[in-house]
Amino acid sequence: MQLELLDRIRSENPVIFNISNYITVQDVANGLNSIGASPIMPSAIEEASEMLQISSGAAINMGSFRSNELPYIEKVGQLANDLNIPLVLDPVAVAMPYRQKVVTNLLDHIHFDFIRGNAGEIAALAGIKWQAKGIDAGDGSADLAEVAKKVAQRYNCTVVLSGPTDYISDGTHDTTVTHGTPLFQIHVGSGDMLSSFIAAFAAVSKNNYFEAARMACLIFATTGEIVANELVDEKPGSFIVALLDKLHLVTTKEIADQITMED
Amino acid sequence: MQLELLDRIRSENPVIFNISNYITVQDVANGLNSIGASPIMPSAIEEASEMLQISSGAAINMGSFRSNELPYIEKVGQLANDLNIPLVLDPVAVAMPYRQKVVTNLLDHIHFDFIRGNAGEIAALAGIKWQAKGIDAGDGSADLAEVAKKVAQRYNCTVVLSGPTDYISDGTHDTTVTHGTPLFQIHVGSGDMLSSFIAAFAAVSKNNYFEAARMACLIFATTGEIVANELVDEKPGSFIVALLDKLHLVTTKEIADQITMED
Amino acid sequence: MQLELLDRIRSENPVIFNISNYITVQDVANGLNSIGASPIMPSAIEEASEMLQISSGAAINMGSFRSNELPYIEKVGQLANDLNIPLVLDPVAVAMPYRQKVVTNLLDHIHFDFIRGNAGEIAALAGIKWQAKGIDAGDGSADLAEVAKKVAQRYNCTVVLSGPTDYISDGTHDTTVTHGTPLFQIHVGSGDMLSSFIAAFAAVSKNNYFEAARMACLIFATTGEIVANELVDEKPGSFIVALLDKLHLVTTKEIADQITMED
Repeated sequence: MQLELLDRIRSENPVIFNISNYITVQDVANGLNSIGASPIMPSAIEEASEMLQISSGAAINMGSFRSNELPYIEKVGQLANDLNIPLVLDPVAVAMPYRQKVVTNLLDHIHFDFIRGNAGEIAALAGIKWQAKGIDAGDGSADLAEVAKKVAQRYNCTVVLSGPTDYISDGTHDTTVTHGTPLFQIHVGSGDMLSSFIAAFAAVSKNNYFEAARMACLIFATTGEIVANELVDEKPGSFIVALLDKLHLVTTKEIADQITMED
Repeated sequence: MQLELLDRIRSENPVIFNISNYITVQDVANGLNSIGASPIMPSAIEEASEMLQISSGAAINMGSFRSNELPYIEKVGQLANDLNIPLVLDPVAVAMPYRQKVVTNLLDHIHFDFIRGNAGEIAALAGIKWQAKGIDAGDGSADLAEVAKKVAQRYNCTVVLSGPTDYISDGTHDTTVTHGTPLFQIHVGSGDMLSSFIAAFAAVSKNNYFEAARMACLIFATTGEIVANELVDEKPGSFIVALLDKLHLVTTKEIADQITMED
Repeated sequence: MQLELLDRIRSENPVIFNISNYITVQDVANGLNSIGASPIMPSAIEEASEMLQISSGAAINMGSFRSNELPYIEKVGQLANDLNIPLVLDPVAVAMPYRQKVVTNLLDHIHFDFIRGNAGEIAALAGIKWQAKGIDAGDGSADLAEVAKKVAQRYNCTVVLSGPTDYISDGTHDTTVTHGTPLFQIHVGSGDMLSSFIAAFAAVSKNNYFEAARMACLIFATTGEIVANELVDEKPGSFIVALLDKLHLVTTKEIADQITMED
């Protein structure tokens, strides 16, 4: 278990390129900064290439794109592939028909090293029946580990199906992260933040992407768990403030202790 | 007084479609989530129809639109009308000439079930002289209850003129909400949040839109009042954090007690 | 030292026009509100003129523009010049080639009264070798006071090169502000907030732009310092909340006392 990836982010400060949605972008930028990475979030297609050349990881979030931004999104994806930069897709609400068409088309042209979504989103990419509800995970009875594995195999990538339990699969290896707090579900943007964190962990992982995904999930979930345990009530506003604090302060020893305590 | 609409939002988790401005969108999304609704905020005209079909309420905020987004805004409005989804207009800074032209044109083509604005904005829609100042309410000497009623009658809708006192009118019935805190005026986005809350309350109101508007104002204002009373000083940063916490935790009993205590 | 500019912002509530980036816009709006100004952040070119006519200051932030927004940015700049409104440029990441071309072109057509950037950004405008890194200041060995002065002379404006020490120059006069806290560097958007604050201070400065820049830096940095001193650990999430609180509450006497104490 390479908890030291956290320290490596803090010492290397990798630049992470983001196409974010306008809803949660501030939290994503602050989260990346708190954990020790350096976010860039340009919007002009003319500068995509030079911005990616200084980046060590990239995340594309489909939360609120306009159709005229799709050429920019595609270009960023292709450039990240050409430059061999680890690339994360966050297919927000991909169970909806238009988004499914757009995202499937993206996945046909671009290789994403990671796909991070909730149960409803990953199930949609697996072609499995699931009651997704807008941006929320929704309900269903599928075996989520199998769902993650199927998408990982189909798109030859590492899949993070995140939720109360995170299911991680690269098509061959599978694991879960069972830490966390229900507060992640109440605060909009937790998933978006995790997607960009995966890019940051991948950036310092020396191409061990499965471990990068696992450590991103484990450190994010466990930090949230530590923070939530210190809140008396379920407070979504205080949670994000304390989470940004703790992402900056948490040590790998604290993470390790919390995991041991739980097990 | 149907305070139980709050419980109904929490049990039904209605999906609320938003066209938000980029300034306050994160607070609006988090506020909706805190109170128990599920926000969606797409930007692509191609998916407007399918996103509205899963929505139980919609709010259009004119805080920072570009002119090339007007066809999207109009389409969303027409679709909400066709689908019979309760629709809220937040005519930010409509006292300014260009916005007045744009918003009047929208109101000619689309039926909004609710209009929520400050005194300067609602006065502008009533054609009444008022010294609005940018996004702020400004000053004037009109009878605000009459201003709200006039706009409600003109546009056949429920009007919420919000401020230190909220004036609510559907053209026939009128009421006020006198709870609140000056901190709402210091934090940018309080009004935007209220507009989206009205859509959420309308979604679970079984078509009692006057009561939905009244309960949205009363619960929002009273929750803010409870939170402000617990802050020693006038702290706008702490206020929004505590407000998001309390919107998730507040009970109808606490609201009822606070109202009684004040009366 | 005109600390009373802070009181003047609070009594006059100047409307400050902003072209913001979508990443930090909410903090900038809340920061302006906290300090006593009134932010407007429209996006439609059709309303630029009327919005600027009610504004007393303007700030253009190049953090995340699209190329099709450049005509809007140029128009706002020209109108601000025509209307004699103090105008601030925040040339985010201008060390990157495409941005350097865009910003240089803007500076050829528009007179900015202020340029506010970090060391890497101001060095790039001075044509001095510097290792900028994305949005971060990066490293170099230039004399930063000279760098600021050179850019001030080249563009006939007041330059604020902000960082652990702020270097302020109008090409003739030079000064520094040595207060602050490392937390400004951890929270994304501190620089963006300062740029808009300079516009607010300029708006009430009776054309004493050098003093406006100095007071904006001093009051912002010292308020941050006071807030950071009250935090036990380095907490970036709590810092921004407490900063927004304190910007609303801090008095000129507290600022003066903090400065004396440090000296």
